[in-house]
Amino acid sequence: MIHFNIPAIDQALLPALQAKVDSKTKPLGSLGKLEEIAIQLGLIQQRLQPRLQSPHLLVFAGDHGIAKEGIVNPYPQEVTLQMVHNFLQGGAAVNVFARQHNIQMKVVDAGVNGNLQPHQDLISAKIAYGTKNYREEDAMSLEDCHRAIAKGAEIVEMISQNGCNIIGFGEMGIGNTSSSALLMHYITDIPLEKCIGKGTSTSDSQYKTKVNHLKKVLFNLNGIDLKDYYLLLSKIGGFEIAQMCGGMLRAAELGMTIMVDGFISSIAALIASKLHPTLLKYCIFVHCSEEKGHQALLEYMGVQALLSLNMRLGEGSGIAVCYPIIDSACRFLNEMASFEDAGVSDTH
Amino acid sequence: MIHFNIPAIDQALLPALQAKVDSKTKPLGSLGKLEEIAIQLGLIQQRLQPRLQSPHLLVFAGDHGIAKEGIVNPYPQEVTLQMVHNFLQGGAAVNVFARQHNIQMKVVDAGVNGNLQPHQDLISAKIAYGTKNYREEDAMSLEDCHRAIAKGAEIVEMISQNGCNIIGFGEMGIGNTSSSALLMHYITDIPLEKCIGKGTSTSDSQYKTKVNHLKKVLFNLNGIDLKDYYLLLSKIGGFEIAQMCGGMLRAAELGMTIMVDGFISSIAALIASKLHPTLLKYCIFVHCSEEKGHQALLEYMGVQALLSLNMRLGEGSGIAVCYPIIDSACRFLNEMASFEDAGVSDTH
Repeated sequence: MIHFNIPAIDQALLPALQAKVDSKTKPLGSLGKLEEIAIQLGLIQQRLQPRLQSPHLLVFAGDHGIAKEGIVNPYPQEVTLQMVHNFLQGGAAVNVFARQHNIQMKVVDAGVNGNLQPHQDLISAKIAYGTKNYREEDAMSLEDCHRAIAKGAEIVEMISQNGCNIIGFGEMGIGNTSSSALLMHYITDIPLEKCIGKGTSTSDSQYKTKVNHLKKVLFNLNGIDLKDYYLLLSKIGGFEIAQMCGGMLRAAELGMTIMVDGFISSIAALIASKLHPTLLKYCIFVHCSEEKGHQALLEYMGVQALLSLNMRLGEGSGIAVCYPIIDSACRFLNEMASFEDAGVSDTH
Repeated sequence: MIHFNIPAIDQALLPALQAKVDSKTKPLGSLGKLEEIAIQLGLIQQRLQPRLQSPHLLVFAGDHGIAKEGIVNPYPQEVTLQMVHNFLQGGAAVNVFARQHNIQMKVVDAGVNGNLQPHQDLISAKIAYGTKNYREEDAMSLEDCHRAIAKGAEIVEMISQNGCNIIGFGEMGIGNTSSSALLMHYITDIPLEKCIGKGTSTSDSQYKTKVNHLKKVLFNLNGIDLKDYYLLLSKIGGFEIAQMCGGMLRAAELGMTIMVDGFISSIAALIASKLHPTLLKYCIFVHCSEEKGHQALLEYMGVQALLSLNMRLGEGSGIAVCYPIIDSACRFLNEMASFEDAGVSDTH
């Protein structure tokens, strides 16, 4: 079992960062959320001139045994593999937005139910050919869960060694919204109906069927310690969720800025932050998804999303779309003139 | 007096645009607001492959006589001129963000109270050295108001001739939040208190003083036809507001996409849309400002802002920050693979 040592962020630099923000030629506070992000970046990097270096976006892909039933999701399980091919060919939404902003994107095969040819943008980290159906048995063994955590950490460490200091966590996996909703329910004690959204379902009847179907899982976890998060993850989680969780923990340990995408990526952050609450100080929750449980989840964690674009696509697409806003926050802190520089009258 | 002829947008292409959006490898509707923007761009440009060409941002600067009293704003009037110098030197927030996204930025001297040296990024369009104090007399003559409208239109036409098809309208003018709040109140009949925000004021007492001070203006407009928008604009408006209004109308006439910034830019859009309601179909309201009246103004016009970043800086800074999101919308429509292209199973 891997251990993480995430340092608390030293707040001593905060007054100097705030003074720098307030010296810029603009009314106090008038850049809103950009000012909060600028200060967060400065604190994470412990400097008054934070820089975003070699931004990366990892798309963790994994299959879910429950998807074979065809009840929780209108798309067949094969779509995970097909979408991985689409990512590698550059045709998915996240590719378009990552290209737009020069974000390096890598696809991680965390547990796709199929074989993939080697590709320069593919990181092979398969734990198994998809999880088991958690309505019948544990999704994965506890050992595999720990392997997935360690693998996610290892991948992030490798990317960090290439000079990256800001990293995003996206995912693809038919069925992973259901797994995430169940994890949220058991961890937060928020009623299941408030955790399960439409996902990629398109009709109300699909949604109702999904809720009723997932309620039948609940008895399987009787008697386990719900605060044993790795155990819970092994019972009802997914390989991509576990790898994101391990990746986020290592990223924080290395002092990187973590970009969290939508609902499923936030579930990985939830578990990681339950294990190490300090993690949240390293995270930027880039957008609030249309996925029903996401807003409640963000509130539970006491965090706010940067944007709200009514997106619910996953893949890290929200990260790639929102990245320029984070970049803007970093740039104004470094590039804007101060009142003194510009000879502008200041009334502060 | 200048006339504008703004064509209604032909909706015949809508089904084909929607079908194109829905053919992309993503669940239906899952790109949220990006899908709406993509379709709007396609309709404005009347093609299935819209392109953003040579994006420009105009920052219209003008002074307001009322600012000399030093009551409605904590900054002295000189700050308008100082900030214009800051724009031309590249040190303001809007410069940083425009550089980030390769947006061509021009500063328009619509009526700054001071003389400016020629500069490659300055468009000289001065109507006068600031407006008169509308608490004592008309802000400008009706003739000057028409001159400002025509000048704004002329500037946009010039920029359009350089190949630009998407243009943003920002502004700078100490005191223009108060002028905008009064215009909003008289045009929409929304109570003045709901139109006046803190602006760049920093304290509650400054805010209360401002509201009480502006209420004393109200009697000056007795007896005029409040639906004579140019007349109203001449009584209490500003040169930068009038030029933005004329510029937006010409932009729509030319079939350009209009990016509207925060409160003051939206007031120009309000007046322009009262004269020609079709204008709104060409507008993207990029962000909802923290300025108190803005949300109510957007609701009054029946439009939604793309983002909400708690910004209240003006200058067109919101446009420059949000532009990449509009670009993302255009790009996914052009670059994403369809289900058929990518061999992904579709359940639509």
